[in-house]
Amino acid sequence: MSIVVVGSVAFDTIETPYGKVKNAIGGSSIYFSLSASYFTPIKLVAVIGTDFPEKFCKLLEKHNINLLGLKRIKGKTFSWEGRYCNDLNRAETIRTNLNVLNKFLPELPKQYRKTKYVFLGNIDPKLQLKVITQITDPELVLCDTMNYWIETQKENLLKVLKKVDIIVINESEAKQLAQENNIIKAGKKIISLGPKSIVIKRGEYGVFYMNDNTILSIPAYPVENVKDPTGAGDSFAGGFMGYLIKSINENKNKNKLNIRNIFNALIYGSIMGSFCVENFSVKSFIKLNYSQINRRYNEYIKIIGLNLK
Amino acid sequence: MSIVVVGSVAFDTIETPYGKVKNAIGGSSIYFSLSASYFTPIKLVAVIGTDFPEKFCKLLEKHNINLLGLKRIKGKTFSWEGRYCNDLNRAETIRTNLNVLNKFLPELPKQYRKTKYVFLGNIDPKLQLKVITQITDPELVLCDTMNYWIETQKENLLKVLKKVDIIVINESEAKQLAQENNIIKAGKKIISLGPKSIVIKRGEYGVFYMNDNTILSIPAYPVENVKDPTGAGDSFAGGFMGYLIKSINENKNKNKLNIRNIFNALIYGSIMGSFCVENFSVKSFIKLNYSQINRRYNEYIKIIGLNLK
Repeated sequence: MSIVVVGSVAFDTIETPYGKVKNAIGGSSIYFSLSASYFTPIKLVAVIGTDFPEKFCKLLEKHNINLLGLKRIKGKTFSWEGRYCNDLNRAETIRTNLNVLNKFLPELPKQYRKTKYVFLGNIDPKLQLKVITQITDPELVLCDTMNYWIETQKENLLKVLKKVDIIVINESEAKQLAQENNIIKAGKKIISLGPKSIVIKRGEYGVFYMNDNTILSIPAYPVENVKDPTGAGDSFAGGFMGYLIKSINENKNKNKLNIRNIFNALIYGSIMGSFCVENFSVKSFIKLNYSQINRRYNEYIKIIGLNLK
Repeated sequence: MSIVVVGSVAFDTIETPYGKVKNAIGGSSIYFSLSASYFTPIKLVAVIGTDFPEKFCKLLEKHNINLLGLKRIKGKTFSWEGRYCNDLNRAETIRTNLNVLNKFLPELPKQYRKTKYVFLGNIDPKLQLKVITQITDPELVLCDTMNYWIETQKENLLKVLKKVDIIVINESEAKQLAQENNIIKAGKKIISLGPKSIVIKRGEYGVFYMNDNTILSIPAYPVENVKDPTGAGDSFAGGFMGYLIKSINENKNKNKLNIRNIFNALIYGSIMGSFCVENFSVKSFIKLNYSQINRRYNEYIKIIGLNLK
């Protein structure tokens, strides 16, 4: 079973201490989809301009990503320019051109509307709402958001949160949304706004999960050569949700959100994030295969001590 | 078997968003000793002034901390004043008065010199050297240091590192010492300076261990009500080394530094750090008992997924 994904498609111009790329392909929906596609098929809902290369659409399709919901409209694709200095945890935005994203009104193809699993990527909460209301009977909905929407679209964002099962969010944004500096307090507050559980992404430090009666915390897979952190959070979310859906489908009789599945999903999410940062743009995902993912899983398990028990 | 500990004893004046204490007892050797005393006996090497309360010495002795090496000299005890704002990971130093620490020349009691296990707490590297050269046949030596010594005493610090088995150090200071921004690269570089392994303390994010062929990483035990982070790093080191020595003594035939012991030592270190931050000064340790430590161990194991495998 597949995941309907809505989010941005972008041309990214990025500078880090390790190099620079110009108009490379990115955007929340692209990172999520490529990452999740290693676990489950994807149905993409997004908008691109006339300048978006057909060749890249072919690559997405090769990754089991359905493009019926990818709308090409007149104009330029959304673009972003950013820079990371020594602190690879923090991007400085130099320029954002919304372009076709300004005119985007997601209309789901009929074939998408009965999908049970939905990821509302980082995009205007109004668009997230527009997508979720078109899904007939959603079973598991995840969402992400960012500081900009917390500041400018709080009301719509709160409406989204009421419809969401799991929110996946950066630590600084979780604290901003909850107006709490402590991660446990922030998690509790956000859960009280609607989601049954919260995944807080802590960049190179790992990831923190919380629901009403469980806390899980894992450190990130340590990467020695980080080239470009862009997309790491969406790649995490793709691996996390992709693995969750895969394990729900493989274990039809079990509780779909048991803690073991969630824990493993956090691990696979972190692995996908770690591959993402090892190269610029989506380069890591172009040649990535399952045996590399499994090899990293086995290394990771040792690093976090799971082989010792 | 016991650990010889050298480090500071201090009167701390601390302000955090959750309160203020004035001239409370602190210092690296005190936090380390109280924390480690839950696992193994301690022999303390430090200096205090005439103003240091006898009552507190009694409390240390009750914790199985031998005070033969605690020298009382004329003058005032070392004192420090600091403030934490919203970022509890960073202290702002308002005032440091070295006082008797200026005249400190550690002279180890005869009964201390045959001790096999040594912790060189955060103190002038010259004093760390002076202690280690008085130990007849050290088997396992750990050290800590800080930015001030990296900047002003690099040469002596490098001499210390040549005599040390494990360095326990903050992440920012590891990066400063190694002049590397990546944690794996910083770890490798510091290992090349002498220590067989390195423990990098990441505050509320956890702790990272590395030797020539192993990496371990664990997230911190999440604390909902942090009151005062002062001493957390030394309390971590005390729990870490205390547990290591306890497990060496309990398993005489086994390799003293096997990965399972080190992993558990990281967990016990983190637990002791988590108790430390829940109260001002050393208050948490005054009433702490083993059953509380064990209870937290069992919770922690679930949070980091060790019960799932």
